[in-house]
Amino acid sequence: MSPTLLPVAAEPAIDASATAFVLICASLVLLMTPGLALFYGGMTRAKSVLNMMMMSFGAMGVVGVVYVLWGYSMSFGGSNIGGIIGNPFENFGLKGVVGDAAGATVDANGTAIVDVFGADVWIPEVLFVGFQLTFAIITVALISGAIADRAKFSTWLLFSGLWVTLAYFPVAHMVWGGGLLSGSEDGLSAMLFGATDGVANVLPIDFAGGTVVHINAGIAGLVLALIVGKRLGFGKTAMRPHNVPLVMLGAGLLWFGWFGFNAGSELAADGLSSLVWVNTTVATCAAILGWLVVEKVRDGHATSVGAASGVVAGLVAITPACGALSPVGSIVLGAVAGALAALAVGLKFRFGYDDSLDVVGVHLVAGLWGTVGAGLLATEGGLFYGDGVRQLVVQVVIALASLIFSAIVTAVIGLALKATVGWRVSDDDEVAGIDQSEHAESGYDLVARGGRLGVTSTGPQTDARHADELTSEGVKA
Amino acid sequence: MSPTLLPVAAEPAIDASATAFVLICASLVLLMTPGLALFYGGMTRAKSVLNMMMMSFGAMGVVGVVYVLWGYSMSFGGSNIGGIIGNPFENFGLKGVVGDAAGATVDANGTAIVDVFGADVWIPEVLFVGFQLTFAIITVALISGAIADRAKFSTWLLFSGLWVTLAYFPVAHMVWGGGLLSGSEDGLSAMLFGATDGVANVLPIDFAGGTVVHINAGIAGLVLALIVGKRLGFGKTAMRPHNVPLVMLGAGLLWFGWFGFNAGSELAADGLSSLVWVNTTVATCAAILGWLVVEKVRDGHATSVGAASGVVAGLVAITPACGALSPVGSIVLGAVAGALAALAVGLKFRFGYDDSLDVVGVHLVAGLWGTVGAGLLATEGGLFYGDGVRQLVVQVVIALASLIFSAIVTAVIGLALKATVGWRVSDDDEVAGIDQSEHAESGYDLVARGGRLGVTSTGPQTDARHADELTSEGVKA
Amino acid sequence: MSPTLLPVAAEPAIDASATAFVLICASLVLLMTPGLALFYGGMTRAKSVLNMMMMSFGAMGVVGVVYVLWGYSMSFGGSNIGGIIGNPFENFGLKGVVGDAAGATVDANGTAIVDVFGADVWIPEVLFVGFQLTFAIITVALISGAIADRAKFSTWLLFSGLWVTLAYFPVAHMVWGGGLLSGSEDGLSAMLFGATDGVANVLPIDFAGGTVVHINAGIAGLVLALIVGKRLGFGKTAMRPHNVPLVMLGAGLLWFGWFGFNAGSELAADGLSSLVWVNTTVATCAAILGWLVVEKVRDGHATSVGAASGVVAGLVAITPACGALSPVGSIVLGAVAGALAALAVGLKFRFGYDDSLDVVGVHLVAGLWGTVGAGLLATEGGLFYGDGVRQLVVQVVIALASLIFSAIVTAVIGLALKATVGWRVSDDDEVAGIDQSEHAESGYDLVARGGRLGVTSTGPQTDARHADELTSEGVKA
Repeated sequence: MSPTLLPVAAEPAIDASATAFVLICASLVLLMTPGLALFYGGMTRAKSVLNMMMMSFGAMGVVGVVYVLWGYSMSFGGSNIGGIIGNPFENFGLKGVVGDAAGATVDANGTAIVDVFGADVWIPEVLFVGFQLTFAIITVALISGAIADRAKFSTWLLFSGLWVTLAYFPVAHMVWGGGLLSGSEDGLSAMLFGATDGVANVLPIDFAGGTVVHINAGIAGLVLALIVGKRLGFGKTAMRPHNVPLVMLGAGLLWFGWFGFNAGSELAADGLSSLVWVNTTVATCAAILGWLVVEKVRDGHATSVGAASGVVAGLVAITPACGALSPVGSIVLGAVAGALAALAVGLKFRFGYDDSLDVVGVHLVAGLWGTVGAGLLATEGGLFYGDGVRQLVVQVVIALASLIFSAIVTAVIGLALKATVGWRVSDDDEVAGIDQSEHAESGYDLVARGGRLGVTSTGPQTDARHADELTSEGVKA
Repeated sequence: MSPTLLPVAAEPAIDASATAFVLICASLVLLMTPGLALFYGGMTRAKSVLNMMMMSFGAMGVVGVVYVLWGYSMSFGGSNIGGIIGNPFENFGLKGVVGDAAGATVDANGTAIVDVFGADVWIPEVLFVGFQLTFAIITVALISGAIADRAKFSTWLLFSGLWVTLAYFPVAHMVWGGGLLSGSEDGLSAMLFGATDGVANVLPIDFAGGTVVHINAGIAGLVLALIVGKRLGFGKTAMRPHNVPLVMLGAGLLWFGWFGFNAGSELAADGLSSLVWVNTTVATCAAILGWLVVEKVRDGHATSVGAASGVVAGLVAITPACGALSPVGSIVLGAVAGALAALAVGLKFRFGYDDSLDVVGVHLVAGLWGTVGAGLLATEGGLFYGDGVRQLVVQVVIALASLIFSAIVTAVIGLALKATVGWRVSDDDEVAGIDQSEHAESGYDLVARGGRLGVTSTGPQTDARHADELTSEGVKA
Repeated sequence: MSPTLLPVAAEPAIDASATAFVLICASLVLLMTPGLALFYGGMTRAKSVLNMMMMSFGAMGVVGVVYVLWGYSMSFGGSNIGGIIGNPFENFGLKGVVGDAAGATVDANGTAIVDVFGADVWIPEVLFVGFQLTFAIITVALISGAIADRAKFSTWLLFSGLWVTLAYFPVAHMVWGGGLLSGSEDGLSAMLFGATDGVANVLPIDFAGGTVVHINAGIAGLVLALIVGKRLGFGKTAMRPHNVPLVMLGAGLLWFGWFGFNAGSELAADGLSSLVWVNTTVATCAAILGWLVVEKVRDGHATSVGAASGVVAGLVAITPACGALSPVGSIVLGAVAGALAALAVGLKFRFGYDDSLDVVGVHLVAGLWGTVGAGLLATEGGLFYGDGVRQLVVQVVIALASLIFSAIVTAVIGLALKATVGWRVSDDDEVAGIDQSEHAESGYDLVARGGRLGVTSTGPQTDARHADELTSEGVKA
């Protein structure tokens, strides 16, 4: 449409298409955490599946509330402190975002709206809050895989609140909120290679969260696995996934939700989010093949757990890069990610850290590869496209900076909790199964035969939601 | 855009953004019923999981067909009868909605379109039919949790068709179709506090179905549990959930689908649906915490089934209120909902009704709390915001009116079926497992070992889809 | 808006609403394949669930990569060869679609865009690629149900790449790419009944893939079942579904994803996609009832596997017809589809082909019925609407043509693989369970009790992702 038809002083208005798109994408990302709970839950032993899932659901409870109270303000609020963190009181409880939006840009109805990328595509600011909230939740939940089967649930909930506040919100602010790791003129990239008109000459590439989500969660998982210590029997006894179809279901839901994560990060339905969609898909397809080939060559068999893990490795790797690569470049990135992660998951045995469900092997390794690989494969700026090493240097810098920051903060929180409330359940409880000791439940009671009527018990506690007073029965013949 | 650029007599046209949004939201709500089937199915004993799931799938079959035939017409058709029900013949079989749309507002292509909220956002009327159809399905399916493990499948199918016709369509009409419980000038609110320009001075708040869906299904569950009677062994023997990961998966899918339910009820992607999205999320997060805190304090353990139930309680409570509260208000509403429902699920043991999967404790209690709580916490009209008690009174009135109406209708239908076709399977079948007697199936056959080749059987019946002629085997060592 | 306000030479621009809609729909269709993996996986025996799921995940890996490399070009690229196939090199690796889009229609940003139906609704071409890619994946995955429990995984991966290239891309090209089975003036319909202005007088009806997806996959399943041969014990021993809740979950996810498949095929959110949504839903509801009635009458019981299969049969049948029928017509089509498929799944025992999970009975039969039934029930052109037999003839012709083409190509590929790499695992491995021999895994290890610490093993192989070196344990008491 010809711009001359627009009134000169047009007020910014909500873009309904982008709003519809982001509303659905936020829903997709929210689904990822239950999906992760299944993915992780299926990989644990049957005696700890519920605790594993509860770490995800518990994180949803804590982080969702915290995000609205001070999380958004610390991530995207104004008055940023040293390029590291926003002022938690600026938008505390979404003040200025909902209701009286004093100081915000508003549409004709008084709704606070944002044009995140300066592309004149406005969405309600509260929707941007909701979308970002889902990223905070999944990032915390991802960490839990590193400490499966052995951590007190109450300590985990405390950790969730502390870590999201002290590690996640700062990194989100640094990368996406205009801080040190962004393309702002005060950021590291601008310090290295200068800025023009207030924008770094080399824009760091992290489309949907390679640093903020995956490197951040991955290194936190490593640090926490070291602090919490190994499961009893780690490296000595078989700890096989108890329900592989759950793992594959989880992988499927993660993939589905990840479209919201990656394509949704464009915050608009346009050519770029379309490219992102295709890149996300084909990188993941290639990563499945990459992982399975490594397994087949190394072990003689291509496994289901490998395919599911390849899905996640591919999705992780393409996350930062999905807006910068061609589909063919995405196939390359994904295939390498699958192969690298398949090799990396064995490291924990060599180095003796019990990253139980491979948060390091999958999220840290593929997150690092995706972030750095974008410096190689980006069609604009990538080394392989003849644009020199500057992009690659910037990618390495933001990867390392987020890694180091998160490692330090996680260590401080993890050690403080260890010294105070403690991380581990008792050895007896761990061996008997953490589901029973922490939640007074067991995952399954699959006896399909009747005839249990003769069992006597007393009164009201004999119910689905009163399982805590019943003895564990497990699977009986 | 300046309105002067619009032609004066612009014909209404389909809003493509809203249409895209509602198409996806309708899909999300449709997914809720399979999600509910998993949520409920996991909570039953293994010997009745399939019957439990079949009550949801059966309701989908019956209600979907009925809705197109006479349901839409009774809910939203014209010629409403006494403010209680629309004329079932007006749009029978979607006459006037699809094909020749005589009498309807049409766009340039002759497609019947509706502007539900008078906000000049038009969507195809047939899409509105589809969206509403999904609400009718889930409401019926919700009731089934109250009569788990013991009801004849054929009676349930009959009940589904009768109840949706005699209870659901009228309440939907009264609340959303301009009837007695709506803000119309003939409604109860207008009778109490007057009307201006044909609209009640105090608009009843039920954004997405606190009355129509949750109070309606919740009280129906209570009435039906009383009519059908207790499971054998209720209160005496353990009836633990047989597959808790299924329950959590179901809760995750319900949460995901609920975005379509709540945000979709705005029928447009705008500032309000964005606020609704965030309110829905944070109320649910807070409800998880509320439920788990009650459990921890009361029982010493926070359970997975509790977290999953907290999810549902939070979603139920925020359903009517999601468009009227602030995010912080939603946190309060959700936390109270989780705590209240956690306390309420024990009532059935005290009062001796076998609401097997807590339809009353979760849907009725949280539905009542959400509907009434909106009168306290609504930022416009709420008692806590200094706007007096009028909104609160209206909320109590619509809650009680829908509760009483539904209770009476359900009792009539339930008793009529009891006196004719009967509700219960035989005691022997109930003890042996209703899956076997009603469906000739069992949920699981998890023996992974080979060697079954020696088992002999005869001919074509030995197949996945011929399981009815095979003996039940359950889980064998 | 009045068209006179549009600038005369407006450049085509991306339609953001349609783009948002298709982005989400593509995500929905992608989810169908994990959903199918669950649907199929639950129906196998426990010893082969992982292999069954891996056939879907493996197909995702292979087809996703192949589609970007040459699949899109062969399906929709220019220079079509004999009306049968596009030139694989034209858009190899998405050349001309992403990056430098020389020759394509581009928007103001240089993004290649397409207006698939000539309705002036433009979406990014790369998004059209992504949407179509998901159809190719699910079609290949569908076939796998016919050869459950017995095929080498490596042969299956080879087959996936070959079949999608030699069977799927051609049929997609013939039907949707302007080839022989389309409404082009060179197509079969035009040959039969003439063309006007370059368009066949009778447009073949296949809205979303009755021929391309379901007849194509269904006949391929039949041919492959014949070539691969029966499972050991077929017709003699019970092969019951091992996890029916998984089957129902899979059916639920398929239904949900199918909205993207059917409504998304309109590539715009408008009146027609809204009608398609409702038709898809009610046909499926009716098909559940149709299947259950047949079971109840024939066997005395309505089963869960029947309900889940009815869902799929209804979805398959409405796929080609969903844009051409009224909702009431869709109810008729769906009810017949459910009943027909319920009767058809017994044919394999009569004729002795081991179509293990009823790809023929469900996809081929319902796909044929839906394609042909559209010639009866289409509100424009249908025989039952008094428009004569021409539409019906065209429908029969495209159904048979795609069936014959696919049968021949599948036979050639299947026999070539049989003669070279071979299809079957050893009899011992098949009896012991293909999960163990092909993937060195087993689906479940559900012992929830603790006390496994005493089990000794050696070193790093004792891990979730190293299950291949562990012995199978199955379910133990």
